[in-house]
Amino acid sequence: MGVKSMKIIRSPKEMAEFAKELKANSQKITLVPTMGALHEGHLSLVKKAKEEGGICVVSIFVNPTQFGPNEDFAKYPRQLESDFKACENEGADVVFAPSAEDIYAPDFSTYVNEETISANLCGKSRPKHFRGVTTVLTILFNIVKPDVAIFGEKDAQQVSVVKRMVRDLFMDTEIKTVPIYREESGLAMSSRNRYMDPLERKGAARIYKALCEGKRISDSGCTNVDRIKAAVINSVSNAKTRVIYVEIVDSETSLPISEVVPGKSRISMAVWYGQIRLIDNILI
Amino acid sequence: MGVKSMKIIRSPKEMAEFAKELKANSQKITLVPTMGALHEGHLSLVKKAKEEGGICVVSIFVNPTQFGPNEDFAKYPRQLESDFKACENEGADVVFAPSAEDIYAPDFSTYVNEETISANLCGKSRPKHFRGVTTVLTILFNIVKPDVAIFGEKDAQQVSVVKRMVRDLFMDTEIKTVPIYREESGLAMSSRNRYMDPLERKGAARIYKALCEGKRISDSGCTNVDRIKAAVINSVSNAKTRVIYVEIVDSETSLPISEVVPGKSRISMAVWYGQIRLIDNILI
Repeated sequence: MGVKSMKIIRSPKEMAEFAKELKANSQKITLVPTMGALHEGHLSLVKKAKEEGGICVVSIFVNPTQFGPNEDFAKYPRQLESDFKACENEGADVVFAPSAEDIYAPDFSTYVNEETISANLCGKSRPKHFRGVTTVLTILFNIVKPDVAIFGEKDAQQVSVVKRMVRDLFMDTEIKTVPIYREESGLAMSSRNRYMDPLERKGAARIYKALCEGKRISDSGCTNVDRIKAAVINSVSNAKTRVIYVEIVDSETSLPISEVVPGKSRISMAVWYGQIRLIDNILI
Repeated sequence: MGVKSMKIIRSPKEMAEFAKELKANSQKITLVPTMGALHEGHLSLVKKAKEEGGICVVSIFVNPTQFGPNEDFAKYPRQLESDFKACENEGADVVFAPSAEDIYAPDFSTYVNEETISANLCGKSRPKHFRGVTTVLTILFNIVKPDVAIFGEKDAQQVSVVKRMVRDLFMDTEIKTVPIYREESGLAMSSRNRYMDPLERKGAARIYKALCEGKRISDSGCTNVDRIKAAVINSVSNAKTRVIYVEIVDSETSLPISEVVPGKSRISMAVWYGQIRLIDNILI
């Protein structure tokens, strides 16, 4: 925006050198890691990054190692040119958009694996997903050298995994989060929502409604996780919706809890809505 | 040594802050990662680090995650005070000696795992060893932020694993190596040699003699890996020695090869010599 135009960097080496130069000049770097197909939710992360001051880097990389063999890697939406424009409009300073070949050598063989938090929730049905996430984030952090990285709270388990990784491996990056951005219907924004037509999107809002029902029961004083789970499952269920999981977890670690601690708990859920896998969560 | 005395840092946070300060002042940092019990071999690494210029950091950390459940973690030699003196005598600027509790939180759960190179040679008999090595080195690199890290060639497979990790994860640290330092008998220096009496040490020199025999055959023009392996196994074998493996590998990757490429191959071996596990290797 304005006079200085946004830099688009494709080469990891060039990005690493640019970041090193920024650090040598004591510049703060804030990273927004994305897989592109940017929507309002992503842009709220960029806004948050801009508030940090310093240099705002948005990475766009559809990361092959976080998709399972039967998942939607091939058809995941890719729209680099419009993503670049959206980033520029938000005032991003750099977009880093490497190719898969530039990140993963043919004989690539080193993975970063968080083993506890990753094993629950989405980790059960997507066994190598978080290994792919932690691996690519380690790579992006090593290239971009961010002081701060911004994540969306829709992927609450991802946030917990990444925070644990940063703590365990003494990474010099602070993890900050932004609340879930929702469509008018209440459906959490996701790049995968575009797989659905408007009617389906409206129907998928039942996921958020079910979470709200769980929250209502919790707010009324119930701390029994089984009762809240049952109510959410009951509320979301219909012919089009297949529950993958509904769990009550610690809001910081995403690990299962046996009783709700009001203000420090979260209902997390994943469902198949037709052919689309959707996740959402709510603090309770 | 000299006017400026060596700094001893125990706290990871203090080390990280000191390293950050050095980087802000564009100082080069060279790290020599050790498990202490320093011998001449280690000191040759410190000498090499001093040649790099800048700040020389020696880390001393007996890393629990790289020992198997039936290995010698508990009895591994610890002699911090004399190690500090040895480092100071060599002109090290900083010794970083954290406690295990300061590195690994009780609920630590994130590991770095190189999966290809680590699966061979020592990886077969020590299944989680290299995972421990790559994990602790990632932690040490993130804390100390070295431009260069120095390793001994005795642990040739470790060097290959670490180089692969650095490449795969885009770590901003250059890996350099120092040749094997040998006792007068030819036995490769190791902190574990002190588990042996002088007579045993002399006997253990047959490992190096067997490697030399393999090299002699290779030098004479033989590129057949099976013939060289057989000669080495034959030469090393006696009542006290049990071969764990003898392999001919690519000298850079430590991956098995089917035919010797002169100047780019290595004979790597591990043996049980009485109760002591010893490794050694030779370029061919």
